[in-house]
Amino acid sequence: MKGNTAKMNTKSHEFIDNTIYPENKQESYNLIHAQLKALLENETHVIPNLGNASALLYLALPDTNWVGFYLIKNDELLLGPFQGKPACIHIPIGKGVCGTAVSQGKTIVVPDVHAFPGHIACDSESNSEIVVPIIIKDKIVGVLDIDSPVFNRFDDTDKEGLEEVVRILASGCNWPDY
Amino acid sequence: MKGNTAKMNTKSHEFIDNTIYPENKQESYNLIHAQLKALLENETHVIPNLGNASALLYLALPDTNWVGFYLIKNDELLLGPFQGKPACIHIPIGKGVCGTAVSQGKTIVVPDVHAFPGHIACDSESNSEIVVPIIIKDKIVGVLDIDSPVFNRFDDTDKEGLEEVVRILASGCNWPDY
Repeated sequence: MKGNTAKMNTKSHEFIDNTIYPENKQESYNLIHAQLKALLENETHVIPNLGNASALLYLALPDTNWVGFYLIKNDELLLGPFQGKPACIHIPIGKGVCGTAVSQGKTIVVPDVHAFPGHIACDSESNSEIVVPIIIKDKIVGVLDIDSPVFNRFDDTDKEGLEEVVRILASGCNWPDY
Repeated sequence: MKGNTAKMNTKSHEFIDNTIYPENKQESYNLIHAQLKALLENETHVIPNLGNASALLYLALPDTNWVGFYLIKNDELLLGPFQGKPACIHIPIGKGVCGTAVSQGKTIVVPDVHAFPGHIACDSESNSEIVVPIIIKDKIVGVLDIDSPVFNRFDDTDKEGLEEVVRILASGCNWPDY
């Protein structure tokens, strides 16, 4: 944690390492949700909030190699804040896992990205993926995208836990900021 | 590298791992500058470009634990894209290493952050830091901020190499986007 202590929204020691997260996946998500709410307290800017959300999830979720956001701008997905290797900037709606999550308006869990029809060429380390749409007043404004080097990394607990992450972000950010 | 191959600006294998960077620091920066220019080719959006720049530097620069940007908004520094642990969102101009780089209008190299007057409480893992202002037409629009767990991590080659990184970003992004 770096920055102005006077305006810090959460305790820095909460982010010292990843050993604080319970092995039980549901309990770990409960802690992640509480930490995310603390990070967003009194903050509504989309870019820093999504940046901190990416950093929190990347730290907390084992076996992930890319955690970040794509945001809809000019009728396509534009790369937002993320953690991981450099990523492509544009994804058309309806293309790949991210674009499909937008066109279908629902979370997409892909146990094996190599078997996903129309899968976009990704980091060769990625083998499974989950994409959760961010919905504001029935309109999709972007997606949370997480890749894993492990096949079948994301189950129903991850789906529900990450959909709650996205709900917290949807209600905690001033979306016209972006 | 993930995303739409049709719009990919650089070869994905360039980012597979950090073993491609020469041990010679100047040669490593030469490669980083070439990769950054490739990432920015035909792209001017500030947020994705700074996100990819952070990811590139975090991958390429050994012994760094936080690499990112703060951008000036409403007369303070606001957290932009970064790689590393969750970070505080606001830093006042003139405070800490980042705020001092803005008020002095020049790069600040801090061999030991614990000895820096007015140093802001940061990640306890950070021991040295470099902050480079981003200058557009004589006006500072933000800073590149890099932390290291190693004391005295940043020398003149880093200063010059990172000032060139910032010049590439300054000329390659459409700054009113942010």
